[in-house]
Amino acid sequence: MKIDDIIAYAKSKGFFWPSAEIYGGVAGIYDYGHLGTLLKRRFEQLWLSYFVESSDDYYLIEGSNILPERPLVASGHAARFNDILVGCSKCHTYFRADVLLSELKIDVSEGAGPAQIDALIHKNQVKCPRCAGALLNSKPFNMMIDLYLGPEKSDKGSLRPETAQSAYLNFYREFNVLRKSLPMGLAVIGKAYRNEISPRQGLYRLRELTQAELQIFFDPDDFKPDIAHYSHTKVTVIPYATKKQVTSEVDRLPGELGIPQFYAYHMGMIQEFYTKALGVPADKLRFLEKGGDEKAFYNKLHMDIEVDVGSWGGFKEVGGLHYRGDYDLSSHTKGSSQDLSVSVNGKRIMPNVLELSFGVDRNIWMMLDLFYAKDAERSVLRLRPWMAPFTAAVFQLQKDEKLQAQAAKALAALRASGLRVFADNSGSIGRRYARMDDIGTPLCITVDFDSVDESSPNFGTVTVRDRDSKVQERVKTDALCEYVARHALFANR
Amino acid sequence: MKIDDIIAYAKSKGFFWPSAEIYGGVAGIYDYGHLGTLLKRRFEQLWLSYFVESSDDYYLIEGSNILPERPLVASGHAARFNDILVGCSKCHTYFRADVLLSELKIDVSEGAGPAQIDALIHKNQVKCPRCAGALLNSKPFNMMIDLYLGPEKSDKGSLRPETAQSAYLNFYREFNVLRKSLPMGLAVIGKAYRNEISPRQGLYRLRELTQAELQIFFDPDDFKPDIAHYSHTKVTVIPYATKKQVTSEVDRLPGELGIPQFYAYHMGMIQEFYTKALGVPADKLRFLEKGGDEKAFYNKLHMDIEVDVGSWGGFKEVGGLHYRGDYDLSSHTKGSSQDLSVSVNGKRIMPNVLELSFGVDRNIWMMLDLFYAKDAERSVLRLRPWMAPFTAAVFQLQKDEKLQAQAAKALAALRASGLRVFADNSGSIGRRYARMDDIGTPLCITVDFDSVDESSPNFGTVTVRDRDSKVQERVKTDALCEYVARHALFANR
Repeated sequence: MKIDDIIAYAKSKGFFWPSAEIYGGVAGIYDYGHLGTLLKRRFEQLWLSYFVESSDDYYLIEGSNILPERPLVASGHAARFNDILVGCSKCHTYFRADVLLSELKIDVSEGAGPAQIDALIHKNQVKCPRCAGALLNSKPFNMMIDLYLGPEKSDKGSLRPETAQSAYLNFYREFNVLRKSLPMGLAVIGKAYRNEISPRQGLYRLRELTQAELQIFFDPDDFKPDIAHYSHTKVTVIPYATKKQVTSEVDRLPGELGIPQFYAYHMGMIQEFYTKALGVPADKLRFLEKGGDEKAFYNKLHMDIEVDVGSWGGFKEVGGLHYRGDYDLSSHTKGSSQDLSVSVNGKRIMPNVLELSFGVDRNIWMMLDLFYAKDAERSVLRLRPWMAPFTAAVFQLQKDEKLQAQAAKALAALRASGLRVFADNSGSIGRRYARMDDIGTPLCITVDFDSVDESSPNFGTVTVRDRDSKVQERVKTDALCEYVARHALFANR
Repeated sequence: MKIDDIIAYAKSKGFFWPSAEIYGGVAGIYDYGHLGTLLKRRFEQLWLSYFVESSDDYYLIEGSNILPERPLVASGHAARFNDILVGCSKCHTYFRADVLLSELKIDVSEGAGPAQIDALIHKNQVKCPRCAGALLNSKPFNMMIDLYLGPEKSDKGSLRPETAQSAYLNFYREFNVLRKSLPMGLAVIGKAYRNEISPRQGLYRLRELTQAELQIFFDPDDFKPDIAHYSHTKVTVIPYATKKQVTSEVDRLPGELGIPQFYAYHMGMIQEFYTKALGVPADKLRFLEKGGDEKAFYNKLHMDIEVDVGSWGGFKEVGGLHYRGDYDLSSHTKGSSQDLSVSVNGKRIMPNVLELSFGVDRNIWMMLDLFYAKDAERSVLRLRPWMAPFTAAVFQLQKDEKLQAQAAKALAALRASGLRVFADNSGSIGRRYARMDDIGTPLCITVDFDSVDESSPNFGTVTVRDRDSKVQERVKTDALCEYVARHALFANR
């Protein structure tokens, strides 16, 4: 599928569309409709239960979207959260320099500065792709979105550029309130904001995005999650040094590639999340190590989590695993003059941070791209059953009082079990199946005349039709909740 | 309790504290710690299931926090979302004029303009409360927080001042995607932003706040929810016309006060939400009708939902019920040049809107104020059980392998049932009870030696202690999940 196909599908079914669409929309800002909101919440809940709630050491918190200036100076965002901007002298269009050069197949490092960019533009005689005018000198462009508070609008702040800062800023208080021990993880699911120069590719490069991030604070001498847990999990890595793709068991990575044990453990955890919880085929997932200019200078080890997404033209970043050392707490110690080091195991340390970072919107898009398929016969969204906005739909075969009563009863019982169930009574059963296939509902439950006919051997049962196999089977009404609940549950751990 | 007491309690237990606290905080902006996040999510989920998921006509959506300028011009926010600002000529401190006058016990209407304010200041010879300097002329101050997007930072936008706009802007697409019938409700739970002149009173007047709002779009000739459902529900109202408090059954309001049936129905719904779902005593809840300058001109009927909150000094607004007529869709039809009228029942209409609006942060604060009590003997947060951050805690009586294994088993089983359970094994049982009382955990489960002693009549049971009654009873291990689950469930409907 192409980008426009996915956007058209998302709009027509109610997943997402540009914010303020009736006013022509805003570049890089989207609203989620009802179906998209359900899918997004499924992703967020699954992420939360898989990465955060599975541990007694990890905690979800909620930080503000507006941050004052000082912590963003201390974190380095005020000085360094830049893209390189290049403008046309003739038509005054602006471009993000690395994107412009990449699209012209000119090799450019992610961290290239204005001098390198200008040299590449000069060497390759790059002109404005819109009007062929001469390009001006490039310059750094800070991507933070600033705002001003107070009665004189004199207190500068910014929308947070990443949710991670909320975790770092709250580390010290949470450490003292919660546990006074390490490791301790703080997770945030929330919005982050970037004034992207050229937002595009659907939900890939957004100005307002949702992140799900877990920051694990740990003592580097004492962080040994049990790698045996993922010993049989194979991951694909492209190391920075060799650029040669390697596929290997997680517990062999420390020996083969010099990756720390705790880091390899989390690669395994992420691999299983993508392949088992989301259903991404293993050959469409890889870890790309960044190095040199491409990674932030403070990262000791930085890998992008990449998925092969057709509409984005290949492997693209949907998340990251970053060993950030003690940069964050050290920076905020300097910036705030509050000592954020802690006492553990009888020594004073500045905790290190391992960041697991996921772009929620990118993952939503990725799932639509991978799992939606349309052919002459059917159009089906093959989400993992527990990810589907609705786990089941309940139909009555025809308009009939008895059928209606029975369908209403089934619907109420399923919903009382906490299951998300759609009711649809318009059109033929075939059309209703097609509608549910189209939005990924794994089970369609039909109450028919046999269901309510005491003389039928099928009395007290309903027909359950499976989205993927199209197989229909009779299920006893009193076993229905359990039957459906099994499909709603991801039970890997 | 005083405001500072609640803030101290919230900080020490991990509910909330000022954002970027290590940098001195930001006025009017708070972060939620882990415990606060759990409580906030409980409130949001209960609100969602009570007001939204209970109907097949109502849908949750998610809109962007950043909005472009045009819809906010059309909605009237750009011109009229103002407070009146008055500054001191000597010390240059700024005040929100109506708050300044109210605190001096000078009667001022909520909608008073600069001329009225200046007249009151002159008449009462009001000076700067800080330095006794002369006050300057007052002026309107737009509370929206503006920002600029794009490579030249030339595209003006604002942070949404209310989540409601996301529903209005998405009405037309959702109407066509979802149902093509009325009533249709669109709910948003999310952030809104206001550059408050003098944020204060804990979570009362915030610059970044969370709203939970349901906008019901309906045909005014055909919106007849069954008022009999709340016929026995008594509500307390202060009508604008008489200012005399009336307590009456919901189904008598149309006759007695001329309140439309559909409006009275939702008053009943809100009354039951506060009294039954949140546990607010009926005598601490009232509906205050706004009129004249105090209400937005387009509101046909506007009531504040008020709760008597000691730390705020009496009855204060925690939500609102607003019959907004067709103002919103008409304004956006004009502003966007897209006809947002729809065809229902064979006629073309501009849907009317009934808004149910709740300040999530204010409701969190309200619950801590009402339900936290500390005396010489105990300090207990008496939240309704289903609102508690943790429904239960599991203790092992002493360090012991058998006890530990049994406690771990109980914990795992409870968590697998989707229950939120805390594990605590430090300190005496008395101290552990006290810790759980302090954060509102309704049930404490102790695995003791009897639990694991096959010769004991209490083998296979655990002790469950109730937060409010302090009564302890033995519960069979295999009935424990069901026992705890009953407490986690609000099952009013």
